[in-house]
Amino acid sequence: MSTATSELGVGMVGYAFMGAAHSQAWRTAPRFFDLPLVPRMRAVAGRDGAAVRAAADRLGWDDAVTGWQELLTRDDVGLVDVCTPGDTHAEIAVAALEAGKHVLCEKPLANTVAEAEAMSAAAEAAAQHGVRAMVGFTYRRVPAVALARQLVQEGRIGEVRHVRAQYLQDWLADPKAPMSWRLDKQKAGSGALGDIGAHVVDLAQHVTGESLTGVSGLLETFVHERPEAVSSSGLSGVADAGRTGKVTVDDAAVFLGRLSGGGLATFEATRFAWGRKNAIRLEVNGSKGSLAFDFEDMNLLHYYDATEESAVAGFRRIVVTEPEHPYVAAWWPPGHGLGYEHAFTHQVVDLMGDLAAGRQPTPSFADGLRVQRVLDGVERSAAGGGGWVSLA
Amino acid sequence: MSTATSELGVGMVGYAFMGAAHSQAWRTAPRFFDLPLVPRMRAVAGRDGAAVRAAADRLGWDDAVTGWQELLTRDDVGLVDVCTPGDTHAEIAVAALEAGKHVLCEKPLANTVAEAEAMSAAAEAAAQHGVRAMVGFTYRRVPAVALARQLVQEGRIGEVRHVRAQYLQDWLADPKAPMSWRLDKQKAGSGALGDIGAHVVDLAQHVTGESLTGVSGLLETFVHERPEAVSSSGLSGVADAGRTGKVTVDDAAVFLGRLSGGGLATFEATRFAWGRKNAIRLEVNGSKGSLAFDFEDMNLLHYYDATEESAVAGFRRIVVTEPEHPYVAAWWPPGHGLGYEHAFTHQVVDLMGDLAAGRQPTPSFADGLRVQRVLDGVERSAAGGGGWVSLA
Amino acid sequence: MSTATSELGVGMVGYAFMGAAHSQAWRTAPRFFDLPLVPRMRAVAGRDGAAVRAAADRLGWDDAVTGWQELLTRDDVGLVDVCTPGDTHAEIAVAALEAGKHVLCEKPLANTVAEAEAMSAAAEAAAQHGVRAMVGFTYRRVPAVALARQLVQEGRIGEVRHVRAQYLQDWLADPKAPMSWRLDKQKAGSGALGDIGAHVVDLAQHVTGESLTGVSGLLETFVHERPEAVSSSGLSGVADAGRTGKVTVDDAAVFLGRLSGGGLATFEATRFAWGRKNAIRLEVNGSKGSLAFDFEDMNLLHYYDATEESAVAGFRRIVVTEPEHPYVAAWWPPGHGLGYEHAFTHQVVDLMGDLAAGRQPTPSFADGLRVQRVLDGVERSAAGGGGWVSLA
Amino acid sequence: MSTATSELGVGMVGYAFMGAAHSQAWRTAPRFFDLPLVPRMRAVAGRDGAAVRAAADRLGWDDAVTGWQELLTRDDVGLVDVCTPGDTHAEIAVAALEAGKHVLCEKPLANTVAEAEAMSAAAEAAAQHGVRAMVGFTYRRVPAVALARQLVQEGRIGEVRHVRAQYLQDWLADPKAPMSWRLDKQKAGSGALGDIGAHVVDLAQHVTGESLTGVSGLLETFVHERPEAVSSSGLSGVADAGRTGKVTVDDAAVFLGRLSGGGLATFEATRFAWGRKNAIRLEVNGSKGSLAFDFEDMNLLHYYDATEESAVAGFRRIVVTEPEHPYVAAWWPPGHGLGYEHAFTHQVVDLMGDLAAGRQPTPSFADGLRVQRVLDGVERSAAGGGGWVSLA
Repeated sequence: MSTATSELGVGMVGYAFMGAAHSQAWRTAPRFFDLPLVPRMRAVAGRDGAAVRAAADRLGWDDAVTGWQELLTRDDVGLVDVCTPGDTHAEIAVAALEAGKHVLCEKPLANTVAEAEAMSAAAEAAAQHGVRAMVGFTYRRVPAVALARQLVQEGRIGEVRHVRAQYLQDWLADPKAPMSWRLDKQKAGSGALGDIGAHVVDLAQHVTGESLTGVSGLLETFVHERPEAVSSSGLSGVADAGRTGKVTVDDAAVFLGRLSGGGLATFEATRFAWGRKNAIRLEVNGSKGSLAFDFEDMNLLHYYDATEESAVAGFRRIVVTEPEHPYVAAWWPPGHGLGYEHAFTHQVVDLMGDLAAGRQPTPSFADGLRVQRVLDGVERSAAGGGGWVSLA
Repeated sequence: MSTATSELGVGMVGYAFMGAAHSQAWRTAPRFFDLPLVPRMRAVAGRDGAAVRAAADRLGWDDAVTGWQELLTRDDVGLVDVCTPGDTHAEIAVAALEAGKHVLCEKPLANTVAEAEAMSAAAEAAAQHGVRAMVGFTYRRVPAVALARQLVQEGRIGEVRHVRAQYLQDWLADPKAPMSWRLDKQKAGSGALGDIGAHVVDLAQHVTGESLTGVSGLLETFVHERPEAVSSSGLSGVADAGRTGKVTVDDAAVFLGRLSGGGLATFEATRFAWGRKNAIRLEVNGSKGSLAFDFEDMNLLHYYDATEESAVAGFRRIVVTEPEHPYVAAWWPPGHGLGYEHAFTHQVVDLMGDLAAGRQPTPSFADGLRVQRVLDGVERSAAGGGGWVSLA
Repeated sequence: MSTATSELGVGMVGYAFMGAAHSQAWRTAPRFFDLPLVPRMRAVAGRDGAAVRAAADRLGWDDAVTGWQELLTRDDVGLVDVCTPGDTHAEIAVAALEAGKHVLCEKPLANTVAEAEAMSAAAEAAAQHGVRAMVGFTYRRVPAVALARQLVQEGRIGEVRHVRAQYLQDWLADPKAPMSWRLDKQKAGSGALGDIGAHVVDLAQHVTGESLTGVSGLLETFVHERPEAVSSSGLSGVADAGRTGKVTVDDAAVFLGRLSGGGLATFEATRFAWGRKNAIRLEVNGSKGSLAFDFEDMNLLHYYDATEESAVAGFRRIVVTEPEHPYVAAWWPPGHGLGYEHAFTHQVVDLMGDLAAGRQPTPSFADGLRVQRVLDGVERSAAGGGGWVSLA
Repeated sequence: MSTATSELGVGMVGYAFMGAAHSQAWRTAPRFFDLPLVPRMRAVAGRDGAAVRAAADRLGWDDAVTGWQELLTRDDVGLVDVCTPGDTHAEIAVAALEAGKHVLCEKPLANTVAEAEAMSAAAEAAAQHGVRAMVGFTYRRVPAVALARQLVQEGRIGEVRHVRAQYLQDWLADPKAPMSWRLDKQKAGSGALGDIGAHVVDLAQHVTGESLTGVSGLLETFVHERPEAVSSSGLSGVADAGRTGKVTVDDAAVFLGRLSGGGLATFEATRFAWGRKNAIRLEVNGSKGSLAFDFEDMNLLHYYDATEESAVAGFRRIVVTEPEHPYVAAWWPPGHGLGYEHAFTHQVVDLMGDLAAGRQPTPSFADGLRVQRVLDGVERSAAGGGGWVSLA
């Protein structure tokens, strides 16, 4: 499958939800794709020795270490994969880049613009030496989303007039759902805005190929106090009957944006939309057609071609499982759909390809910084009562 | 079907799109519903004598007159139905009320807040004498929308957290679509904002039972010059190859709002969403459940009950054609859906019931004024660069 | 709207569900369409004098008579509209044709093939004298269905490989739903097969332009005894606690068919599909594309064009509300959908056009007989244990 | 992750489409699930030495062998996984069982009833010694399908009245799609009937917990001659311009069935339904509710509860991604859907659990034989002109 010279040792930091998803991707990518550079799962790092050891066994890592710093000194590690909460991203990523390791860092890039700027600067410096950094806006690599971008780039929908982007979840709608690090401003930076709003900001800019030049928005916390979690399971954990904790982040964010091409954008990110489990919705209306996507039907893309004759025009429900579709040829026959984790596998595929070719992978840390500035603009608008904030 | 004392003579002003819809409603309501007060289609008014005569014949009015003022002096007319462009609403409606005629006025109530205030004051004065005024936010009376309001009122979704409301059309997305009075600020007051945004503002407030306390928004005109229409057909008419006219209204409006109960609302009104023909979408997320509606499937309401056991919870696709549903018992068996014009018939039914009972029909002119103030807030926000405008 | 010479007096027999639908159509057609022959609603016939008088007032008929025979001798009646249970169709329709009256007869044409043959013969004889007969397979005139046929005729889907047709209701799934004439073999001829199966047999043949050359099938009655109805309301009425009646028809029918062009067809008609209210589903797969329709979304047609490039091919969700679509130009702007009863209005429009032009309206009684023979074939197959019955 | 005593060596025969899917499952199951018996991927067998070696490397097998018989003599292989065309199933599976190896065999169990009977007998004999056999009707283990069965077993939809089951693909609708072993009766036994019809027969019986007592059906081959494939890719390969081959199996099958509980079933299996890529649709209507599934939206199950109050009853769109749903807790948070291959992982999980516990895994070879008898019944009905064939 590979020779020694075309291997890349990977060290991962963190092994919770994102760590499991990344591990599945590192394991699976070489099984379905011909990679010019083959990842080797060298070591996973965590603070609790027994837990990280168990995680290494379960997730398929050769080794377990209790300090992420250890990964930076290992010769068999060429890339550090950062899967920890946002407050640690800057420290780990910058140190790893300075140690000459490629970095894949989960989103959002950081908890503050200042951190993101430092990271972006570190990435730029490292790139001078061929050391690369990438931020994990994974949903870009859902085939239907990648197809949407491709259709925009081909000019199929013309100039972009409207983007409406929503990321709707419901795991906090129940006031008895327990605390988690995601609800602690110290760890998470922000709430729905940074955790899921970041994804739709990235998708809106990525799919249209444009950037946001200004925003206005509102943030809201509907439930200010929650039971502490006794154990963690999935996103939300299990509540402790007695103790409570204070929610210090937003439960929901709504914002407007202006696109660089002149179009209008609306955004919504919430964990309070009962019945919407992971509804990432993106609709783009252009001068020649429209595109619509909803992650709850992740193998579908809807496309309206306004140049069709009127009697038979209609949104086409494209089942994005054809070999002609991005990433799909490596998988199953038409109609045999993919799931959530496949986008992580595609991320590994693209990253290995770029590293092997000496190309800058995307989204870069600079791209991540740009998203961070949009989020920061929304926070400033909300703090100032909802006024307009220019990002130009 | 009725005795002389339980009849109400109706005079209608205007006979284009809205006039046709209203006529169908006046004709049809007594055929399916037991009305305590039966409308008689006495006369239709218009400026062009031959055209209004032809319209009277086609639409089923006893008489045709060439000045709306004539309707006000007729003893056989007890109600004036105003179906003209917005710039004429105030003059006609106020005069009719002062002449002691009930008034049904198409939306938006007026082109400016000042006019709407005058109309609302006139309506209040007339009400002292039992003369009533109502504004035609007809979509309230689509059975699925009426059911949505009822479920909110019953407490089924708890406190409202989110409203996301969109009114998407595409009839102007083609830059060659011709001018119409709807694109002329003088006649129409505003563009997408007043024409269709008004509907979703009303629906959001009506379904939740709350009001908007502040807004921020952006307006945009994507196409500034269009061919003049040589003839009118449907919404958009037929283009004249040579002459062009200037579009003086917005093509699209996006705005955020805060609800009186503390929830967040997003709004979008556009005629540039290719492939969306008349997509009035309303989703409401509450503390105990959610509701979702799309006029492109107007006989459906989607309802999520968060108190269900998790394994079988899901949005219920309610086919709103059961006899238990609002207005439906008078029509067809389950599954035999209704169409656009039925909401106008329901408007007649409710109006006749209220007038017979001496009740104030809803939405009142005061309700219409409240919507107008929201639209005005959005315009002021947009004019000021998107800042927040308090409506309290 | 018309001159004396271009009017046609109509007399209707029966005034229940179908009578109400037909009356709305007779009233409405001339209001939206330019008709070369304008119907006048002269008289409605029924057995109960007081009830028929009330129905005439409510439904808008000039006169009420207590014997349908009376309609045949009136000079002001040129067409008899038969809206009674199936056991009376043959007698009334044949007599009317022999009296020189055009006939519109509800489906199914008759309760037996013998009756249908007699009716077809009478229609053929009458046609010699310019007297026309038509059977009311109304769903043909839902715009989305008419568009489906048009696309097949244009060759858009090529040769037909598969038809899958279902008519699913649930109003008898509750064993406490009461008896009605529709459950009595004497009155109704058959159950789900003739009442709703007839519609999908007609639609399958009409949309494809082919005929069924053989069938095999099963019939089933799930609930054999039901409470008698104390009053009738909608399809199912209100149950009487004490008395019960015997169901003598099928509750459900499933059958296979072979199309004249060699394709395969599956059919299902049932009133026991909980949650499906009036789900008339038709999917046709051809050598070049596919079409799909579901009456629960009656304004939509789904069309797959297999000649599209693979990356963007997908079922198009056509919102059948464009002026280019059959019947639609006379109604509302795009996206403002139609309802159940509009197909009856279109039936009047087509019938008036054909009569004015001296053309045979479709579906003719011969077409109705062909459907009857299919239903009879299914009944013979079921009676014989499910074997194949050739219809050639 | 395991001790030596709780491991099971696996040897796989075949490494094409099914081999890739099975390999992913063997690799992945222990990463997400706590297995009482951990599979070890010992060896893959194939005829072409170089190809099987490459496959072993890519798919993650320790070893590659060129004769399946070799697997039977290895001590480190405790289970043989048969992923070859149907004509080889009987020989391999029977030999493996006789050699004391557990067997997992792809569906359909065999190409003929006689072979299936021999296999079932061998499985029964082996079971006496604790050696187990299972057939791979994998779709049972899609979470939404498993949930459907569970809801039926809990009595949620009452007695089953109707099953409508369809498996629709389109990869042969183009007459230029090339030959494959799946179109050769010698290798495949039958066409759409055995390849995909087998799945929906199994699903119908599995979800309802009933069996088919009789069938009638039609088979059809629409395209009799096709270009030979020069290379294989996905299901359909790439066509050779010059040579053609003869299709000796059915392109499509339609059939009716009677369920053991008295309900009616309709089936359709075709590769000629343009636009339907892998649409496995199952709808079950019971006396108290309904269920509906479509693999094109594989993470959804639709459930109608007829005991709900009428005003809010509706098909619930259950997003089957909650931890309470079958198999889901081991994967991702709600809304992060699964894909096609996950059902294979679940198959491994269930099989390992059963083997560790000494239980008979399901579906057994006897279950596979029962499906085979249904398929045989359909073939006999079709051969005899579509008459009824009793399976009792």
